[in-house]
Amino acid sequence: MINAATRSGIILNAFILLCFLLFNFSIFAVSIKKELSYKYYTKMAKELTTRAENYSQWYNDLVVKADLAEQSAVRGCMVIKPYGYAIWEFMHDALDKMFKDTGHVNAYFPLFIPKSFFSREADHVEGFAKECAVVTHHRLMNDPNGNGVVVDPSARLEEELIVRPTSETIIWDTYRNWVKSYRDLPILCNQWANVVRWEMRTRLFLRTAEFLWQEGHTAHATMEEAEIEAKKMLGVYTEFAEKYLAIPVYQGVKSANERFAGALNTYCIEAMMQDGKALQAGTSHFLGQNFAKAFDVKFLNKENKLEYVWATSWGVSTRLMGALIMSHSDDDGLVLPPKIAPIQVVIVPIYKNDEEKALTFARCEEMKQKLVAAGLRVKFDDRDTQKPGFKFHEWELKGVPVRLVVGPRDVKEGTVELARRDTMTKESASYESIVEKVLALMEEIQVNMFNKALRYRNENTVDVNTWDEFKAQIEKGGFVHAFWDGTTETELKIKEETKATLRFIPLDVKEEEGFDVYSGKPAKMRVYFAKAY
Amino acid sequence: MINAATRSGIILNAFILLCFLLFNFSIFAVSIKKELSYKYYTKMAKELTTRAENYSQWYNDLVVKADLAEQSAVRGCMVIKPYGYAIWEFMHDALDKMFKDTGHVNAYFPLFIPKSFFSREADHVEGFAKECAVVTHHRLMNDPNGNGVVVDPSARLEEELIVRPTSETIIWDTYRNWVKSYRDLPILCNQWANVVRWEMRTRLFLRTAEFLWQEGHTAHATMEEAEIEAKKMLGVYTEFAEKYLAIPVYQGVKSANERFAGALNTYCIEAMMQDGKALQAGTSHFLGQNFAKAFDVKFLNKENKLEYVWATSWGVSTRLMGALIMSHSDDDGLVLPPKIAPIQVVIVPIYKNDEEKALTFARCEEMKQKLVAAGLRVKFDDRDTQKPGFKFHEWELKGVPVRLVVGPRDVKEGTVELARRDTMTKESASYESIVEKVLALMEEIQVNMFNKALRYRNENTVDVNTWDEFKAQIEKGGFVHAFWDGTTETELKIKEETKATLRFIPLDVKEEEGFDVYSGKPAKMRVYFAKAY
Repeated sequence: MINAATRSGIILNAFILLCFLLFNFSIFAVSIKKELSYKYYTKMAKELTTRAENYSQWYNDLVVKADLAEQSAVRGCMVIKPYGYAIWEFMHDALDKMFKDTGHVNAYFPLFIPKSFFSREADHVEGFAKECAVVTHHRLMNDPNGNGVVVDPSARLEEELIVRPTSETIIWDTYRNWVKSYRDLPILCNQWANVVRWEMRTRLFLRTAEFLWQEGHTAHATMEEAEIEAKKMLGVYTEFAEKYLAIPVYQGVKSANERFAGALNTYCIEAMMQDGKALQAGTSHFLGQNFAKAFDVKFLNKENKLEYVWATSWGVSTRLMGALIMSHSDDDGLVLPPKIAPIQVVIVPIYKNDEEKALTFARCEEMKQKLVAAGLRVKFDDRDTQKPGFKFHEWELKGVPVRLVVGPRDVKEGTVELARRDTMTKESASYESIVEKVLALMEEIQVNMFNKALRYRNENTVDVNTWDEFKAQIEKGGFVHAFWDGTTETELKIKEETKATLRFIPLDVKEEEGFDVYSGKPAKMRVYFAKAY
Repeated sequence: MINAATRSGIILNAFILLCFLLFNFSIFAVSIKKELSYKYYTKMAKELTTRAENYSQWYNDLVVKADLAEQSAVRGCMVIKPYGYAIWEFMHDALDKMFKDTGHVNAYFPLFIPKSFFSREADHVEGFAKECAVVTHHRLMNDPNGNGVVVDPSARLEEELIVRPTSETIIWDTYRNWVKSYRDLPILCNQWANVVRWEMRTRLFLRTAEFLWQEGHTAHATMEEAEIEAKKMLGVYTEFAEKYLAIPVYQGVKSANERFAGALNTYCIEAMMQDGKALQAGTSHFLGQNFAKAFDVKFLNKENKLEYVWATSWGVSTRLMGALIMSHSDDDGLVLPPKIAPIQVVIVPIYKNDEEKALTFARCEEMKQKLVAAGLRVKFDDRDTQKPGFKFHEWELKGVPVRLVVGPRDVKEGTVELARRDTMTKESASYESIVEKVLALMEEIQVNMFNKALRYRNENTVDVNTWDEFKAQIEKGGFVHAFWDGTTETELKIKEETKATLRFIPLDVKEEEGFDVYSGKPAKMRVYFAKAY
């Protein structure tokens, strides 16, 4: 029933497809041990802008198209979609366990902060006053003119409430009643919460008016203990970023100018994104006695003397989602490290008729059970409504680490087609050993992703010694390691001229003699500059 | 070195103590198999108001003294303290698993809702307008008169934002873009979030301006499917309340007057507190197409016709903490069901000198390891600063299900003193079989607590047939089961005269012929009334 024209059309299409496939082989250096079912693999047109074209657009496209998040009707507030939220849940669970393993407990403090609390700590109010959502009323009423509902002017609050941008003030107001003696210390509380900072320019995950985070707030009897705590939590963040997110980070301390509003020291972890911009991935603050003094939190020490309590606070947020995306993903979509991938393995059957469907489905189901029993998170994509090529594309976009494909021939020959998302390579694996193979791959992919990101970060960390080199390197991107004279004045001028900020002073900085790359004044150490998110 | 007066004082004290102990034995019918270390057990004066004295004060005392929660500096907003939050985390984890096992996923939607969204669904705005926290500005500034910070009048929002009291509106505005065809349905999303309802009279956990909850919002292609979902989630809540919280609940449907603002049907679970008042522990709403119409959410059905989407929403909140406390606790403090107790077993050593301390500590540590290895949550109270009696009292107050006490003689004889919090009974158990014994007790206590609460609930559910009986019974407390003529008018009059509300129409109500207990008009069914929280 096929006429000659149709037939030659089919042959032509097959030829084009073959050329395309051969081309792919040469690119990906795939180890092919058997004839793969490529006829079913019709690669869809990529919907993503490429990174080379427009990095910023690529990021926005990816966040939306991989179903991670989207803009809501409320300015600057995002909707975190189920797939994105599932990743955040894995981050939450891993971090929460690390916090508990280091002796912390969770609690919950109010969303609202009385306005007057903000003024108590001078630097703090200075830092947050300009981006506060302010609640002024507690009731709506029907518009007397009949235009829907309006704010009821008689329901004005005596004191305005601020939607928390961070909770130091309300928490230290609470701690006052929790602490009487050194025996009540330390307090090691963490809170998982939403916070609001009224940012003018927002980007999904990276900078949103509302975001989700955790904030640890600890209280200690001595300065030393608080300093140790602040650094310990920086260590927890480092381990989390590197082991779970596969993101290599530098540990450092912020300059006075970049410190958290109210802190004596802000420790940070800094990562390098694929566009050469730095991203602050977490901070841990040594707050000294500032908040204890502002909220009058004293304790009787072992010598029975009243003393102010020492404080730390530390946090990471949904911003980590942005760091995760920009550290690993490519023009095909997300690339997720196995440890926090909601789906670690996707199984796609390939079949032409009911008989083949029954055959492949049975094998896929059996394989799924085996993989799930081994503790893996597995999706069997049994949709009848989509072709394999569409499915491949979709799961690549969503960054699933491993794809397993089963066609009728695979069932007969005891094989499975296995594709890795991180390297985009394919191979034929034996069905018998598929569980061991995939389990080993989970480790391998996790390590490979970290090493790749580490290589990139190291290649993009450059020592410079002159101002011309500095400017040229900052233009290219990456971390620039240069002498700094230690003054805020120089730091701000560098920022003004290059848009680069002083990202951090390394935690283990060594004293060296040199001259500031900008001012030429004597300098005692090299620090890291970069343009940053 | 003890003079005669002191000696006779000691003898007198010992005599008083003995009388006290014998009295206790007769009350608790303790099975004593060996001489217990009562000399160390100095029962502290109870700090709690008793339930008989003042139930409401007992509740408030208990919440604060058991370290569950406290009032914050912000009107109506509570601080959930670590111990209280740990219980909430167990509730969260159990419920979250049940939601996921029934095919739901989590997501996150904005904290703020544009004011205009509220007006879209007429009943909805009517229901929530009077208790809304309204954000009107997005910046503070230094007071020109030098009095700290004030709201910057130039930073007024174009449209006011409401802090979500519930999220139907913002979620259905989002769903509009998620749904094109029947293939995009159902959407089965849940959100864990904080919400704000500006209640005028607040009580810790039971009614607070801000509270934590989960809200499920599902979208369906057919009315039937949505109705099934609403009932299914009521079933999940029932199972959770009964199996985890050991709280027996009635399943019912609300009268039109008590429905959620915007729902066509509100299903509920209702529990009975120890003071004879009912508490609504969870609701599941069938929303029909109300929100789909308000936010224009349509889909192409299988017949390729545009149709509005069908909706449900369902939620439980930190109010469950209140239900938990008031269902089981007694004048000695909290009584926690093992499944959600942060500490299931507390171990207290008893010793007089360093030698005994070393001996008992070694045994306690070993026992702890064994119990932890069996999957139990165990606290070894090794504090040197507190006496055993103080510790016993504290862990009773905090509701730990099982206490194990080890003295030097226990170590020698291979025994452990075991006390149950639910029955306040003690016995001597063999150290060898302590793990099995405790594991079995976890089950037994869980079941016993449920049965006790069930007995109480059933004893306090009474059929009445006359208005005099009705009034008398409502005064006594409990659920009153009576004929109702089905009108809101009668329902409101009953409320006006007795303060009792129509709690629910049983889910499996059977049609009967009768006469309304208040109006005397013909009635077709019996429903449940009670005074309620």
